[in-house]
Amino acid sequence: MPDTLPENSVGLVTAQTMHFDVPLALACGRSFDNYDITYETYGELNSDHSNAILICHALSSDHHAAGYHSMEDRKPGWWETCIGPGKVIDTNHFFVVCMNNLGGCKGSTGPASTNPETNKPYGPDFPIVTVKDWVESQARFTDKLEIKTWLAIIGGSLGGMQVLQWNIDFPERIKHAAVIAAAPKLTAQNIGFNEVARQAIMHDVDFHDGRYYEHDTVPRRGLMLARMLGHITYLSDDAMREKFGRELRQGKISYGFDVDFQVESYLRYQGESFVDRFDANTYLLMTKALDYFDPAADFDDDLSKALSHAQANFLVISFSSDWRFAPERSREIVKALQNNNHDVSYAEVVVPHGHDAFLMPINDYLDVFGAWMGHLVKEVSS
Amino acid sequence: MPDTLPENSVGLVTAQTMHFDVPLALACGRSFDNYDITYETYGELNSDHSNAILICHALSSDHHAAGYHSMEDRKPGWWETCIGPGKVIDTNHFFVVCMNNLGGCKGSTGPASTNPETNKPYGPDFPIVTVKDWVESQARFTDKLEIKTWLAIIGGSLGGMQVLQWNIDFPERIKHAAVIAAAPKLTAQNIGFNEVARQAIMHDVDFHDGRYYEHDTVPRRGLMLARMLGHITYLSDDAMREKFGRELRQGKISYGFDVDFQVESYLRYQGESFVDRFDANTYLLMTKALDYFDPAADFDDDLSKALSHAQANFLVISFSSDWRFAPERSREIVKALQNNNHDVSYAEVVVPHGHDAFLMPINDYLDVFGAWMGHLVKEVSS
Repeated sequence: MPDTLPENSVGLVTAQTMHFDVPLALACGRSFDNYDITYETYGELNSDHSNAILICHALSSDHHAAGYHSMEDRKPGWWETCIGPGKVIDTNHFFVVCMNNLGGCKGSTGPASTNPETNKPYGPDFPIVTVKDWVESQARFTDKLEIKTWLAIIGGSLGGMQVLQWNIDFPERIKHAAVIAAAPKLTAQNIGFNEVARQAIMHDVDFHDGRYYEHDTVPRRGLMLARMLGHITYLSDDAMREKFGRELRQGKISYGFDVDFQVESYLRYQGESFVDRFDANTYLLMTKALDYFDPAADFDDDLSKALSHAQANFLVISFSSDWRFAPERSREIVKALQNNNHDVSYAEVVVPHGHDAFLMPINDYLDVFGAWMGHLVKEVSS
Repeated sequence: MPDTLPENSVGLVTAQTMHFDVPLALACGRSFDNYDITYETYGELNSDHSNAILICHALSSDHHAAGYHSMEDRKPGWWETCIGPGKVIDTNHFFVVCMNNLGGCKGSTGPASTNPETNKPYGPDFPIVTVKDWVESQARFTDKLEIKTWLAIIGGSLGGMQVLQWNIDFPERIKHAAVIAAAPKLTAQNIGFNEVARQAIMHDVDFHDGRYYEHDTVPRRGLMLARMLGHITYLSDDAMREKFGRELRQGKISYGFDVDFQVESYLRYQGESFVDRFDANTYLLMTKALDYFDPAADFDDDLSKALSHAQANFLVISFSSDWRFAPERSREIVKALQNNNHDVSYAEVVVPHGHDAFLMPINDYLDVFGAWMGHLVKEVSS
């Protein structure tokens, strides 16, 4: 590994893209005849293909979960904290796979891709995709990798929802499942925040009904607002107090509408930088996938019934200060599994960081997650 | 009273406007040479002017606190729940006054008023006004009414902040003070939400740097988003769950970006209807007044010191599910008063309704508030 990249990183990685030409029927009733899935892998697949771990990504992330794309790359993958040699998801032992979900904006077929029917970008004609659709596409991808059973499927937030759906749709293909900072469905408040974000994007005059690619523009303002709002909900009140308090940017108030407080500056920066790396139509799709996710709905609103065929050994982790997906929501998952006399480890990590904690290097979190993963290392090594 | 209006309402009311021509110096360093204050009064001022109660309004309300403007008026004033004959703030006993704050949009001088220097609407040239400025203007108004001492000053949310400021700046002019669902200053999270709301308004292409009056337009989209976001924070997660749950508007999901869930429909309606009754520049000003409020800052960040000269008898009320101004924030006020060996009654009302509870007919709340007000009735009657 080049010596300017950290020793415990998977180092330089390159995304790959796999093409699929067997039609994929979607929950909305439409289908894709062809589609691409972009993904990355870290570590080596062993001879009997028993050490493969699938990582499912959240709202605004992608397949680039670990490592660097170039020597000049300043930021590693989004879960560099957890994935790498010697880390919790140890690439010395596991073959780790992360895919960009359908509808994404980092290589997999998404709203910016060319619609074969019109030879223009899909834009608003891209079908609404659901967590179930993603899991179906992930299962087909799994076949192509010649992986019969995932040693583990792991995800945080919207990623955790995909882990749950895998256990409902393909229970025989997962040995272990880790559901982190997730919920079995969104609350009205969650949906409300998503709706404000969507309205911000869709009301931007540069949105052009989602056909902004053809107008050579981007709904910057709307996407920025969506991200600013998202960020507030990813942090806890306490975390924001600790991080920013009422600290002033220039030492005194301006009596104007420029930035006064550090927190304003932070949110504007987060919003503006997001626009350069994310597509607004993808953001819309991801929020709808979140809103629609409610696997118990098909089982008389009984999550235990929905998970009754799950076979995996579960780890559920929540964070005490996460008000987006509060610990109560994780406990609903634990309860549903226990109702099935299912093996489940649950940890509520007491931290002030809010929802974002699942991405952070927090000792208590990594300890409990690492201990659970340690059993998987033994399983693979034995 | 005409028999189609409720018996326990103050009935038909008419707003009045008072002109001021003594310059008012503002915290920002600028001043008004002339300004108007629009207000309403309910009940009769007694002969020694000892039964006057000032109501301070919150972010998006105004001087119309009770009664109806016409027989066709479908909605009464914003605090009809509490103000009226036989109600908690009993107009059979008290002379109740509510003013539209400077910078407002319902009659008092505000951003839509004509700037005498340009003969155009102030727009963005309207000075930033603070809670302290409001209290100063309210004190001058008090003089004109020939009221030496308010029997009580009462306010919820941003209104409660004005009550605190009165006790700092004019402690000798208040006998009783009720601070409901308020805080001694905003948290970083509060400021963050306000900043998203402001950015939504200011990024609306119809905002025209605040000079939209001259462009014969209104930043509808931005103000709508601000209000939608505000509404989520006025309700608790539980209240939204109870009110909307995941109920679908059309019974099934649409797989599109139209309204799916009832909560989306509610928020869109709240946002859209707000635009027709509120001015975006006023909204910006009110959020800045909230952000800037921090009376302890001038007293070594010690709220006890700031309130050390307060003489009033205090009632502080918070609501258990209010996460915008949580009970902890009210307790900071109680603590500061107690540190001064000050007489204070505190009640945390256990309700699921969130911040909006202060406007609602909740028995436990009205009971505690009413008991405290009962002492004032006795004081006036004796």
